[in-house]
Amino acid sequence: MDALLQHAGWQPLTRSEPRTVDVPDRPVVRLGVVGGGLRSAVGRTHFIAAQMGGGFRIEAGCFARDPAENERTGEYLRLPAGRVCRNPAELIDAMRGEIDALLVLTPTPDHLEQIQLALEAGLAVISEKALTASVDDCVRLRELQAANGQPLAVTYNYSGYAFVRELRARVLRGDLGRILKAVVEMPQEGFLRNDTSGQPMVPQAWRLQDGAIPTVSLDLGVHCHHLLAFLTEHEPLADWGRQASLGNFSEVIDDVECAGRLGQQGLFSMWYGKAALGHRNGLRIRLYGSEASATWYQAIPDELHLHGRSGQTQVLDFGSPDLLVANQPRYMRFKAGHPTGFIEAFANLYDDIAGMLTGIPMPAADPAYVPSIAEAERGLRFLQSVDQLSRPAS
Amino acid sequence: MDALLQHAGWQPLTRSEPRTVDVPDRPVVRLGVVGGGLRSAVGRTHFIAAQMGGGFRIEAGCFARDPAENERTGEYLRLPAGRVCRNPAELIDAMRGEIDALLVLTPTPDHLEQIQLALEAGLAVISEKALTASVDDCVRLRELQAANGQPLAVTYNYSGYAFVRELRARVLRGDLGRILKAVVEMPQEGFLRNDTSGQPMVPQAWRLQDGAIPTVSLDLGVHCHHLLAFLTEHEPLADWGRQASLGNFSEVIDDVECAGRLGQQGLFSMWYGKAALGHRNGLRIRLYGSEASATWYQAIPDELHLHGRSGQTQVLDFGSPDLLVANQPRYMRFKAGHPTGFIEAFANLYDDIAGMLTGIPMPAADPAYVPSIAEAERGLRFLQSVDQLSRPAS
Amino acid sequence: MDALLQHAGWQPLTRSEPRTVDVPDRPVVRLGVVGGGLRSAVGRTHFIAAQMGGGFRIEAGCFARDPAENERTGEYLRLPAGRVCRNPAELIDAMRGEIDALLVLTPTPDHLEQIQLALEAGLAVISEKALTASVDDCVRLRELQAANGQPLAVTYNYSGYAFVRELRARVLRGDLGRILKAVVEMPQEGFLRNDTSGQPMVPQAWRLQDGAIPTVSLDLGVHCHHLLAFLTEHEPLADWGRQASLGNFSEVIDDVECAGRLGQQGLFSMWYGKAALGHRNGLRIRLYGSEASATWYQAIPDELHLHGRSGQTQVLDFGSPDLLVANQPRYMRFKAGHPTGFIEAFANLYDDIAGMLTGIPMPAADPAYVPSIAEAERGLRFLQSVDQLSRPAS
Amino acid sequence: MDALLQHAGWQPLTRSEPRTVDVPDRPVVRLGVVGGGLRSAVGRTHFIAAQMGGGFRIEAGCFARDPAENERTGEYLRLPAGRVCRNPAELIDAMRGEIDALLVLTPTPDHLEQIQLALEAGLAVISEKALTASVDDCVRLRELQAANGQPLAVTYNYSGYAFVRELRARVLRGDLGRILKAVVEMPQEGFLRNDTSGQPMVPQAWRLQDGAIPTVSLDLGVHCHHLLAFLTEHEPLADWGRQASLGNFSEVIDDVECAGRLGQQGLFSMWYGKAALGHRNGLRIRLYGSEASATWYQAIPDELHLHGRSGQTQVLDFGSPDLLVANQPRYMRFKAGHPTGFIEAFANLYDDIAGMLTGIPMPAADPAYVPSIAEAERGLRFLQSVDQLSRPAS
Repeated sequence: MDALLQHAGWQPLTRSEPRTVDVPDRPVVRLGVVGGGLRSAVGRTHFIAAQMGGGFRIEAGCFARDPAENERTGEYLRLPAGRVCRNPAELIDAMRGEIDALLVLTPTPDHLEQIQLALEAGLAVISEKALTASVDDCVRLRELQAANGQPLAVTYNYSGYAFVRELRARVLRGDLGRILKAVVEMPQEGFLRNDTSGQPMVPQAWRLQDGAIPTVSLDLGVHCHHLLAFLTEHEPLADWGRQASLGNFSEVIDDVECAGRLGQQGLFSMWYGKAALGHRNGLRIRLYGSEASATWYQAIPDELHLHGRSGQTQVLDFGSPDLLVANQPRYMRFKAGHPTGFIEAFANLYDDIAGMLTGIPMPAADPAYVPSIAEAERGLRFLQSVDQLSRPAS
Repeated sequence: MDALLQHAGWQPLTRSEPRTVDVPDRPVVRLGVVGGGLRSAVGRTHFIAAQMGGGFRIEAGCFARDPAENERTGEYLRLPAGRVCRNPAELIDAMRGEIDALLVLTPTPDHLEQIQLALEAGLAVISEKALTASVDDCVRLRELQAANGQPLAVTYNYSGYAFVRELRARVLRGDLGRILKAVVEMPQEGFLRNDTSGQPMVPQAWRLQDGAIPTVSLDLGVHCHHLLAFLTEHEPLADWGRQASLGNFSEVIDDVECAGRLGQQGLFSMWYGKAALGHRNGLRIRLYGSEASATWYQAIPDELHLHGRSGQTQVLDFGSPDLLVANQPRYMRFKAGHPTGFIEAFANLYDDIAGMLTGIPMPAADPAYVPSIAEAERGLRFLQSVDQLSRPAS
Repeated sequence: MDALLQHAGWQPLTRSEPRTVDVPDRPVVRLGVVGGGLRSAVGRTHFIAAQMGGGFRIEAGCFARDPAENERTGEYLRLPAGRVCRNPAELIDAMRGEIDALLVLTPTPDHLEQIQLALEAGLAVISEKALTASVDDCVRLRELQAANGQPLAVTYNYSGYAFVRELRARVLRGDLGRILKAVVEMPQEGFLRNDTSGQPMVPQAWRLQDGAIPTVSLDLGVHCHHLLAFLTEHEPLADWGRQASLGNFSEVIDDVECAGRLGQQGLFSMWYGKAALGHRNGLRIRLYGSEASATWYQAIPDELHLHGRSGQTQVLDFGSPDLLVANQPRYMRFKAGHPTGFIEAFANLYDDIAGMLTGIPMPAADPAYVPSIAEAERGLRFLQSVDQLSRPAS
Repeated sequence: MDALLQHAGWQPLTRSEPRTVDVPDRPVVRLGVVGGGLRSAVGRTHFIAAQMGGGFRIEAGCFARDPAENERTGEYLRLPAGRVCRNPAELIDAMRGEIDALLVLTPTPDHLEQIQLALEAGLAVISEKALTASVDDCVRLRELQAANGQPLAVTYNYSGYAFVRELRARVLRGDLGRILKAVVEMPQEGFLRNDTSGQPMVPQAWRLQDGAIPTVSLDLGVHCHHLLAFLTEHEPLADWGRQASLGNFSEVIDDVECAGRLGQQGLFSMWYGKAALGHRNGLRIRLYGSEASATWYQAIPDELHLHGRSGQTQVLDFGSPDLLVANQPRYMRFKAGHPTGFIEAFANLYDDIAGMLTGIPMPAADPAYVPSIAEAERGLRFLQSVDQLSRPAS
């Protein structure tokens, strides 16, 4: 359990509200929230996912710069009067002793300052990915966190799917043999799509600027990198990259491909972007091993397709025998045969974060389930290298 | 709004806790719960679904006959001390004024008495299907409810899927023309499956007895009937039925087929059962109209397949243009491209029930979204007729 | 081999043109053809399928009543001058000694007379299904054939698919245990479809009359019946039937459902029709056994889906290990990974018919691969019973 | 029609055997065959495909070095005595005036010499891909062919699928807008697979040597290149390549990826290989345009998936309205609803080759349907460049 924490100096919260059965008996984690107003894409998702397993309670927040949206979000959450603050500093100050962790849902460029505030105030941090907009910022956070010992988790939410975790467990057990090749793709269409009035959809303004790492990489690339490393326990090392702007917004990169080595003996290819019509979100992972291969496709998340060296093809789902992890009660909020979705994957991740923060992990939890600042840094370094590989030598 | 209530004499709760955006501004509904202990199949599902949209708060319950399980369930729900009661009567008595509605999650044979208690105490009722085990019991409830005016909702949860509702909207708009034939099937495998130790799975004891209507019909048939009527606004009238016991438990029916007329001009066929290996839950609905046909398959719930008279094939999902209802923000808890699941469908239904109970429905809500006692009665009458049609003439 | 023939008195053709490898060394069967003109639906299909494996050569024919079409078909087949005849009698007379068998491709009502002519002339017969339009006619043919000993094969072409045969082999080996339930469906859309000009498609005139057995049953029902019996070696016995006219042509039945017993311990359901938009041809077979279930879907014919009692799901294809029959070279005209289609299934059946007619069957052939007059009669009796069950008692 | 020929000096064969309906009235093309013995992978496939449409007749051949196999192949084809020759030179000499074209089915390294012989003898040539093993050899052939004017066709058989051609027609009409990105992949598993005895499968010896261009590129890469150019009428230009040996045979490349520009404004990515378990043949083509995207997957060849800019998803098949080319009778050898397969795609290509050789093309034929030596040369140049890009700079 202590191993799980991996954060020197962090004291698990006091056990106050016991729980039972497959949900560990542990205290609720009290959250303050920065960002996530009702107009944002991610707020409601986080609120539901965090609270679905009972591990968290949202106590306060500054949800939006716009006072009206800020207030409305507090009302939506049925927060008591006085729990909607004007800015992160005020929130942290006002809620001292009343919250255990800060949940950071603002655009990536804003994370650094807000997380610094939280860590310095002795709060744990749960941050949307990408953790920071550059490697340098991430290093600064890492050093600060190492110094003050507060735990920090990054919400790479796709890793919460039961069958992503099942695949990881099988890869680590050696079912696939040596991973010869991994192909990860996450094509999307938002930068080419029309809306219902026939006009091109317009993304949020901050998505239409690229910094040291293109925004599309901070948005999609971090997931691809994390999943690849999470599933294989090998770190991808790119030796080729290509970045292009194919969609409506020529000022930003919206299509990235890269390739390189995965661990000692394998290869990987990766593609993500926002100009591929037909893909609401085409996240698909294919791992080709020396003994077997596996495919997982996010749109049908409760299936895992396996292909053996002798030609056998198996489809795993929640009703399959001999599952390694997907058969845990925590993943089946209802009986097999009832599809689960993204928000439950996200809730699975939150349950693990609650486990880390309270020091009382979920049954059979794997330390890798809670992505740390180290993984965030590796992802940013990877994406930075892809950016550099993509630039013409001069 | 009043039309939506459809329950004379029911006073909407006082508006106390305002809400915003696509979630109506309305008071939270306070629930007492009967059944749903942590060992039951349905408890956790209901608890999550009811609270996901913020419309309900569980205040108290008697969750299980076993005192330990009862207590543990209260702990899981983080109920304050004193909120776990020993039986329904005690619950209703102790929580008078503290709860608005009773949520009934016990086995069907227990519903009648518990719902009577609640109605007589002036509580609204939310009941798991099947509402009662016989038509007679349902008639008794209907008469009681008509007399005292409390609202009652039955949780036919599959009707909460966004694309089931999209299909209904398209059928009612006439997109399919006249419905010539409806084929509904819900095969499952539980009565033939082995568990992980290679032994046949053993259902709960109450599922291994058949009353006036076979338990498999109360379990699965009610959903098939409800979906058929919900989607087409036509009532199926069976003229053929066949009931068989194919699985491990020869004392109960586990396979039912029936057929007959659907409305004035169409036909239907229906199959459900628990002895069909390979189907965790094969719920599939196919509607064949004079102008178009449609298929919806629960395992991939975010898709609707449409086929036109000229041969065109379209697939609708959350990213499609010109959706009628599935594009409402309430159904997309995150962006298109992230699969939704059963528990969200269930939460959609709970959101509508909250709308009915508070008198403040969800935007663009359809009165049929909240199944009433009338629909429950029609379903039981239908299933009773199938049972009678299945018996050899003597 | 003699057992395979199952036709007393039939002398295998003399071996003249040897063949090798997985194709047996045997003489070519010389065909005369009745029907199958270039405007018919089936002619070209039969011509290709019969000749694909080298087992047959078309020597002569009377292909159409229309002299121009008749001639053109002979040209298409590159027949020498004088090989296009005006009617069956002339064909049989003119080609005496030059053909071994008559291939009958005319509408079902014409079969009886043409087949009688052929049998009386000492020719073998290959007939399109349905063999005859009534049970009585079939009985007459059976008696005639028994008397004169010529072989007769009926082309139930779907049974030629490799994975239909693989499924049969697995059922007979007992892999599925006892067959508890079989569900066969073959919905089509032709009687509701518009053509490209937006006008309803108009079927051939003979399809718009119903005789003792509805034409849709002669067209589709015979396949459903044959496949069910072929796959399970159990004969279905209907105890319920429903026939309706749902499409544009109210003068004929276009939708049939029936159900009953399959063998001693199982049940079956069947649906076929021509008024189900979206189904070019939705032929799907599902067998639910006590140990496993299987699904085969004609649109993706190179796959067989198997589901075991412990929840395992397997997909078989041409690359799977441990195939029982589908791995024979005859079924893979190119390497695994290259889809096969209907015309190859048909060619597989023709190869088996050549095996029967020459007395030199394909390697590992199963006598059931060549449907006989006995199977045709059972099918017609079954469909006649469905017709009778569908009529209201008076 | 003359434009279709594109071969100065070639005289169409004399019209001798007229044909009708959708098959043009034209003479049969008489073939001599080199290679394709019954033990080869491709012989039977070509024999069936060439003769399915009636356009060709095999007159003679030297099918294998092994005299027994050579003889048996002649018997399989029912060739008259004296039509099986010992080597290509003998064949060409003996059949002078009796054959119109030489069909070359030998391993790629043998093509150059055999095709030279044929061209010099005034024969047309139909050659399996890859046409030659190097760019230099291809240039030599091109010059020879230009000098003597005989037509030459290369059998890139995947381009014969009706829905590949439908996709091409739609791309050229502009339905997809500008092609922003093309993703072509053709993963296979043969170099990692075990056979049924659990031993690694062993390819033919000539596949285990790499020349100037890796054999896997000559085998699979040429198809990927051809399809990409065929579908888009843009020539891919690689600027990155990676070649690896991942399977059992470290002496040869078995995995190739490359990327670069497609035409003026688009990008492409390509992957093919033989060490990807689970893929019998995973050929999949995805074209992402500025107005729409399309996916075609060889395993389900009768479908084409289209996605528009407004989010609409359509599935095209043989029953769809408004097809551009796939609705021609030539592609539907039986009614819609009956799957077609690889061998029919191949036959489609042969029908077009017959059209070129006779000067009487199929109705609505597209000159690009018959791949010429120019396309073969472009493919080899492309694959050579990928090989060079894959080598470390030194």
